[in-house]
Amino acid sequence: MTDFAATRAMFDLPVGVAYLDGNSLGPMARKVPDRVQRAIREEWGDGLIASWNDAGWMALPDRLGDRIAPLIGVAPGSVTTGDTLSIKVYQALAAGLALNPDRRTILSDSGNFPTDLYMAEGLIRTLDRGHRLKTPPPEEVADHLSEDVAILMLTEVDYRTGRRHDMADLVARARALGIVTIWDVAHSAGALPVDAARTSVDFVVGCTYKFLNSGPGGPAFIHVREGLADRIEPALAGWLGHAAPFDFDTAYRPADAVRRLRVGTPPVLQMAALDAAMDVWDIASIHDVRARALELSERLIAGVEAACPGLALASPREGARRGSQVSFRHPRGYAVMQALIARGVVGDFRAPDILRFGITPLYLGEAEIDRCVATLAEVLDRRLWDDPAYAARAAVT
Amino acid sequence: MTDFAATRAMFDLPVGVAYLDGNSLGPMARKVPDRVQRAIREEWGDGLIASWNDAGWMALPDRLGDRIAPLIGVAPGSVTTGDTLSIKVYQALAAGLALNPDRRTILSDSGNFPTDLYMAEGLIRTLDRGHRLKTPPPEEVADHLSEDVAILMLTEVDYRTGRRHDMADLVARARALGIVTIWDVAHSAGALPVDAARTSVDFVVGCTYKFLNSGPGGPAFIHVREGLADRIEPALAGWLGHAAPFDFDTAYRPADAVRRLRVGTPPVLQMAALDAAMDVWDIASIHDVRARALELSERLIAGVEAACPGLALASPREGARRGSQVSFRHPRGYAVMQALIARGVVGDFRAPDILRFGITPLYLGEAEIDRCVATLAEVLDRRLWDDPAYAARAAVT
Repeated sequence: MTDFAATRAMFDLPVGVAYLDGNSLGPMARKVPDRVQRAIREEWGDGLIASWNDAGWMALPDRLGDRIAPLIGVAPGSVTTGDTLSIKVYQALAAGLALNPDRRTILSDSGNFPTDLYMAEGLIRTLDRGHRLKTPPPEEVADHLSEDVAILMLTEVDYRTGRRHDMADLVARARALGIVTIWDVAHSAGALPVDAARTSVDFVVGCTYKFLNSGPGGPAFIHVREGLADRIEPALAGWLGHAAPFDFDTAYRPADAVRRLRVGTPPVLQMAALDAAMDVWDIASIHDVRARALELSERLIAGVEAACPGLALASPREGARRGSQVSFRHPRGYAVMQALIARGVVGDFRAPDILRFGITPLYLGEAEIDRCVATLAEVLDRRLWDDPAYAARAAVT
Repeated sequence: MTDFAATRAMFDLPVGVAYLDGNSLGPMARKVPDRVQRAIREEWGDGLIASWNDAGWMALPDRLGDRIAPLIGVAPGSVTTGDTLSIKVYQALAAGLALNPDRRTILSDSGNFPTDLYMAEGLIRTLDRGHRLKTPPPEEVADHLSEDVAILMLTEVDYRTGRRHDMADLVARARALGIVTIWDVAHSAGALPVDAARTSVDFVVGCTYKFLNSGPGGPAFIHVREGLADRIEPALAGWLGHAAPFDFDTAYRPADAVRRLRVGTPPVLQMAALDAAMDVWDIASIHDVRARALELSERLIAGVEAACPGLALASPREGARRGSQVSFRHPRGYAVMQALIARGVVGDFRAPDILRFGITPLYLGEAEIDRCVATLAEVLDRRLWDDPAYAARAAVT
């Protein structure tokens, strides 16, 4: 059983803050500052160019992929890291269309995170071959699966409501129809077990700065199903994805397996932060994290429903259908959240009316959940949303 | 006149090392560790999610672009940073082909850095519309300009020999033929003045970890000519390039100007390092840097030609035709460089026989040049390339 007091001790959270926004930006693990400082002062400052080899910089993209692999249920050697999630989505989409050259539909849903849809739009416009993007409501996606569909691309957990797709079911249905499957686990990796190998999903893409706590702008990752990677001719054929990057051939020859989806020079400082942040998984089990998150989520829902009659649950009530966040609706949601943040309880807001709370047992327990409920009740009872101090400003994913 | 003692004092170089490899990876500026530490501990650790606004993280891509703009001769607001150079090349290529839809040739040269050529190959394969990539020898590029050419994509300074293209001439010829121009300044930005606005080049792309000293994996940048950016429909349509990223629209609507070429979440730690590294340009003039680099380059060439008869100059002899590196050929070049590095003089090697030396006046002076010459002479006189200690290992760009 995971020792959650020990995992919590690995994070450095501001005193007095209950941080329920780890679904947007995970907090800083205690080891991060020293690990990045070492990368800067010793590896870069002292080692200079030799550190590409001597400090293992060149190996970082794949070594970090190997650390993420167990969290998404796949073998080492099948995940690599780098770039942003948008870029990884594009790589998977371009490869998927090439694998299904006679089909013209990319199927997603209207609840997908916008950048996934934008990247599909951009690819379709660039190809200019009559592809189209279909985005039915999430609950109707299964009805749109057909042999016309080239790619099914879904984000498992809805960034607004926490609604979770049934991966095993949807991937199995899609595969039976010859559809290439892309599974975005931005809100799953580090939050709940993803059993990618068993579902035989073709591509898994995700980011690391949410439940994997790599820090602002941490690298993304991509997994390709065993046996599939070697059939891909990368659209983004960067030098780091070459079979022999340091031969400086003028002709492109892709590296083996998922390594061909590396693109450019790895962001070493961000990767050092991710490396330190991943250490918590040496003592934490993703299954324990999921079980504990469900307990804490139930506690938050029950507490809010008892104490905050003005809030409506926006997330599925059934735990299995929810990711690791709980969302509520309130017509003055923006101002309610600002009042909450001013009182040290940090969640976030998504238009038009959603209050989001990330449930992250690695560093959150009952005390923070109860404080969140009590503070919400106070804000609502006192109608603090009318306070002009809580006026509009920009929010961030 | 730039005070080069003052610029040198802004860098922290290992004691006893003469670092002539800043054309591959620039060294660490003294302000970097604290600046990154502040981004980690204060902005991320304490500020958490609020730092996207409060610490200016969202503004970093464009603010850093504004700091780079004067070095490439363009106006603030026309450069943005992020991703890797490979990705920026792809964005420019995809946009360029869309701007010239009836032409099928991308013209580059055989001396271009491989990733630029690979990205073109990947795009051509993905589009599958009969485009082709032509890579004549650098000195013959001008002969291949014609109204069949959609894009001219060149790297100004050859990464092996330092040979420099004549930007004003080639861009003017290409523009007269309706060719879209992409200029890669990976080995120019921070090394010599790039007069992009005056040449009316369409796209400038570059990296920051060479002569701009941003550290391993620092972000790339892209500039688009005034008036052109708003005609581009981005191939990589990421959420950060949306006109209103935080509206989370499901439909893509590009941001104004070059901001539409932002893609995903910015790598804040790498950007903090770049920000600190750019401070040297508050006291350094790129024109002075160029003039001084030419002096130091002449000194190196003259010294080597006097003391090292076994080395053949691989760079153009005329300063104006050279970037900020000097290269020599030696049949046992790899081992010669290893012997040199073992003696504290750090350049690098490129197959099959090239010794490269980056000339970076911000932190290098006559003493390092003279030491380089003397050490090279010693290595060659003693035929140290036969020493088994200098056997093969991987080299890095």
